[in-house]
Amino acid sequence: MSFRSLTPEVLSQLIAALPESVLAGDALSEDYAHDEMVSAGFRMPDAVVRARSTEEVSKACEILYANNIPIIPRGAGTGLSGGCAPIHGGVVIDLTRMNHILRWDMDNSLVHIEAGVVLADLTAACAERGMFYPPDPGQRFAAVGGNVATNAGGMRAVKYGCTREYVRTLTVVLPDGRVVKLGGEPSKNSSGYSLLHLMVGSEGTLGIITEIGLKIIPQPKFTVSLLGMFEDLAACIRCVPTVKRSGLDPQALEFMPRSNVVRAEKFMEKVVYPAKSEGSDVGAYLLTTFDCRREEEMVEIMEAAAEVMLEGGALDVLVFDNANAMKTAWDVRRAVPEAILATYEKVEECDIVVPISYIAETVEYALSLTEEVGLEIHTYGHAGDGNIHIKLCANGMEEQEFRVRSDKFLDLIYARGKGMNALISGEHGIGAVSVRRLEDYAGRDVMDLMRGIKAVFDPKGLLNPGKGLHVCDGLT
Amino acid sequence: MSFRSLTPEVLSQLIAALPESVLAGDALSEDYAHDEMVSAGFRMPDAVVRARSTEEVSKACEILYANNIPIIPRGAGTGLSGGCAPIHGGVVIDLTRMNHILRWDMDNSLVHIEAGVVLADLTAACAERGMFYPPDPGQRFAAVGGNVATNAGGMRAVKYGCTREYVRTLTVVLPDGRVVKLGGEPSKNSSGYSLLHLMVGSEGTLGIITEIGLKIIPQPKFTVSLLGMFEDLAACIRCVPTVKRSGLDPQALEFMPRSNVVRAEKFMEKVVYPAKSEGSDVGAYLLTTFDCRREEEMVEIMEAAAEVMLEGGALDVLVFDNANAMKTAWDVRRAVPEAILATYEKVEECDIVVPISYIAETVEYALSLTEEVGLEIHTYGHAGDGNIHIKLCANGMEEQEFRVRSDKFLDLIYARGKGMNALISGEHGIGAVSVRRLEDYAGRDVMDLMRGIKAVFDPKGLLNPGKGLHVCDGLT
Repeated sequence: MSFRSLTPEVLSQLIAALPESVLAGDALSEDYAHDEMVSAGFRMPDAVVRARSTEEVSKACEILYANNIPIIPRGAGTGLSGGCAPIHGGVVIDLTRMNHILRWDMDNSLVHIEAGVVLADLTAACAERGMFYPPDPGQRFAAVGGNVATNAGGMRAVKYGCTREYVRTLTVVLPDGRVVKLGGEPSKNSSGYSLLHLMVGSEGTLGIITEIGLKIIPQPKFTVSLLGMFEDLAACIRCVPTVKRSGLDPQALEFMPRSNVVRAEKFMEKVVYPAKSEGSDVGAYLLTTFDCRREEEMVEIMEAAAEVMLEGGALDVLVFDNANAMKTAWDVRRAVPEAILATYEKVEECDIVVPISYIAETVEYALSLTEEVGLEIHTYGHAGDGNIHIKLCANGMEEQEFRVRSDKFLDLIYARGKGMNALISGEHGIGAVSVRRLEDYAGRDVMDLMRGIKAVFDPKGLLNPGKGLHVCDGLT
Repeated sequence: MSFRSLTPEVLSQLIAALPESVLAGDALSEDYAHDEMVSAGFRMPDAVVRARSTEEVSKACEILYANNIPIIPRGAGTGLSGGCAPIHGGVVIDLTRMNHILRWDMDNSLVHIEAGVVLADLTAACAERGMFYPPDPGQRFAAVGGNVATNAGGMRAVKYGCTREYVRTLTVVLPDGRVVKLGGEPSKNSSGYSLLHLMVGSEGTLGIITEIGLKIIPQPKFTVSLLGMFEDLAACIRCVPTVKRSGLDPQALEFMPRSNVVRAEKFMEKVVYPAKSEGSDVGAYLLTTFDCRREEEMVEIMEAAAEVMLEGGALDVLVFDNANAMKTAWDVRRAVPEAILATYEKVEECDIVVPISYIAETVEYALSLTEEVGLEIHTYGHAGDGNIHIKLCANGMEEQEFRVRSDKFLDLIYARGKGMNALISGEHGIGAVSVRRLEDYAGRDVMDLMRGIKAVFDPKGLLNPGKGLHVCDGLT
């Protein structure tokens, strides 16, 4: 079967069913055509349903599915792999109006939310209650539903794990409009196939996540950040396994070459990190955070962590031991991707993840390709879990030329990655950009299983087509 | 299609392909007919393949699948829900000879093992290397492959989570003999549907797990156990949320009524827990363990935890602060199920799990049914995560009568559980015993999705038939 476009008749049905929630024609903003990585996918949808409830999502799906029209779920649109771009046309289901925290269940350390709640709002609401929702992808204005759909990781995954580990229950609208509840509130569950875990990371291709029950934990009482300064990136990265194995259990562990810090500081108009240490130029920084139960413990952890980093080759270690200082130190890290985007006209991103023993090799190899592919290459990322963000950048280059060159880079790095047990994506997802590469990495048998599962949930292949995996039927 | 029995021709094919590994006829022990809960399922297999490698499992599956013969994977046979009983006949694939630790990858904190490795051996080997594999189901002689197949939880799940959270990679033989590798070594993964998480907890119905890559963590430096003594079970259970919310992050939190302790101590021929405290008879105990990084911290945690329990209603608190004392205290807890099995001729078990705010209600309700169902009822279990083990016991009762009564109890408790967001099984799995109940809890749409997934992996329905979910085709 093949996809249909939205006809005036079906649009009328949608409007009749959801009079307050349908956008079409001139009311459609171009924002709905893409996510934050415009090059990953761009096409205007036929219409948008700004759903206010699970029931509205269900009604819209029922109508669209019956009429063979593609359905594209969308949260805050902050993705980096084209996951919510309506690349085959169809109707976008915008979940941003479903932004309510539904219920706090403090006895069971759970919070129930709508999928459109913005991560920054959730973490702030948790903090007000002395609670903590650990996942912390760089982009705090993402919708939590999108975080679940991509199993977002982020800075604190080193200690606290990814989004997956906090999802207990999901309300999901299947493409034909049926509503199912997956998972369970208890922390243990051995009751049938985990459709919940299948849904986490499925990038809106199996169902539309509308409500989420999340585990939350008590807020760590104290946190402290340390910045290790190193002569060069190689020395910085060599230190990572030492810190990981110290038993000090870092919450976050991020590496940044000096060049990225300089760019970020320029963007922030503020100098935070020293350029020199112990008389040497600093080539790279390792930013870490530790949490602890008591104030006295903080001092001990500070001392122990500083010692580990100095023994691991740091020139010197700076300590940020109050909320303001920590915020400033981390603002630099957070500004790195924004500063790169502000500096270059063209930016492509690679979200490869490798076992941490291969970080140094991967980073060195990536940088070594600068000349061969003819692009500027910047790396930074989550040293603690091997998730390296590599930005491919250019100014004054034609789009076509840029595509050819960045594809060449991606082909090379993923070919090399195979020998290092790498995975295609650590946290951004496959989206529209890595479909072919996933096929190559996973192999025929695994892809056939994935396609079989897709067909169980979405026999017509209408839900978010072209994302995550090739489905032979439907693609026109 | 329907299942076939093993014919002499197919047996010859198996023996020709795997000359060292096939047991049939008189060589078959009755142990292969059941797991530890004999009442959950009992039938002699047609033959057994004692596989020594993934390749041998693959060859056996290829032959059996082509001939429509049921295939039943089996680890150490320590399950409690009939998960490995060949209830529809067929050939058991015994994985106990695949008991090798394959590779330690200390740089990435991973260990790669064969699925038949016994949990006790794995934890001992980890300890020798200063590492820790946290999942700790009561039964330490289970095969780790079986733990993965049921997402085993255990005592330390409160702090460290269930088996699922430690599984990074799986080698799986599909029913037709194809071998797939699932998951990835890095800790982050957003690369397609998580077939790994689908396989965890699938009870040998989607594929046969033959090799496992597990995350391990540094061994906690110090641990301390505290025993809270309470006037009655209600007071004991009321204290649980207080301890959970204290921020002291208990590793384990187990409740035991006095009657279970008396029985366990008699079984052990050793008195460990005081019968009286502060002049009152003790009615129930709360056994907890905390871990800490430094010795001084231990004293602080001890004091803080004791204070929390006393404020939470404990008559008094005993501390076990060295390895021997801790072992003795925990031996009592570990002896509880064994002592019950030794006391009664007939024992049925319920593995319900509820949000922790409902533990007290569930336990009270279970005990209140004693007269109505006419069985002795004993409860104990994982207070920290709502996984209550309820043992239904009788002496001198006909099997048929016992079945009727225990089914009545299970119907009543699971009916009540629905209003408390309970799940059928916290850690034992659905197996052969809870198939109908899962259907009732999950509902038609979710079960249809599960059946669809089953058909993708196992179109003929030959793998571990009758377990986890009803598949209409194939059951004769």
